Amino acid sequence: MSVKQVIIVPKDVKMSKGKMAAQVAHASVTNMLKMVGGRYMAQRDLVTDWAASGMTKVVLEVPTTIDLMKVLHNAQGKDVVTCVIRDAGNTELEPGTTTCVGIGPASEELLDTITGELKLYGES
Amino acid sequence: MSVKQVIIVPKDVKMSKGKMAAQVAHASVTNMLKMVGGRYMAQRDLVTDWAASGMTKVVLEVPTTIDLMKVLHNAQGKDVVTCVIRDAGNTELEPGTTTCVGIGPASEELLDTITGELKLYGES
Repeated sequence: MSVKQVIIVPKDVKMSKGKMAAQVAHASVTNMLKMVGGRYMAQRDLVTDWAASGMTKVVLEVPTTIDLMKVLHNAQGKDVVTCVIRDAGNTELEPGTTTCVGIGPASEELLDTITGELKLYGES
Repeated sequence: MSVKQVIIVPKDVKMSKGKMAAQVAHASVTNMLKMVGGRYMAQRDLVTDWAASGMTKVVLEVPTTIDLMKVLHNAQGKDVVTCVIRDAGNTELEPGTTTCVGIGPASEELLDTITGELKLYGES
């Protein structure tokens, strides 16, 4: 089973390259921390499999923050770890701006049912 | 004590915004995994402090990969967690290309002695 993590960034939030990278990293770490405790304990093997296979992370895009919330809502109906990253707003963005959503680590098959239609960030 | 993590990206490696974000996320997660086991066990409180204070991540730049190796060498002489991220080369880059270096979580004071002179990514 192939395990990966996806992070989805809305194109209508304007961030510098460095800012976006930090936000995506927040999402990646947040989900990993969620996986090692609490309600995702049963999925801990996924973290091991993910780490062993190079911790694949894929950054996808959606046009707007509304689209992002639709994807999140879809994911929250399934047994997969999710997080919503909001910016403190100290630098480029308004406080509380949603910058990205992280989903997984999870099986590629499950992730494809949630984000299979989305493009790689920057490809559209 | 303020705890943060820095990720340093060389400007001479040309990556898309999504690619760079994924690489920075690799560095962030890799260092956190290193902190929870092995030689950095004594520094585990840093992870707790870092998580409690919002897991601050700062993305910095250096002009070239050579500069990146100098910063890494400096960091490796101190008691701080580091990682070097290399790309598998399946998409935009040559296999094995070094894409970034992660340092910390660590105290801001210690990090400033290593990366205090570097600019935020994209600011130069």
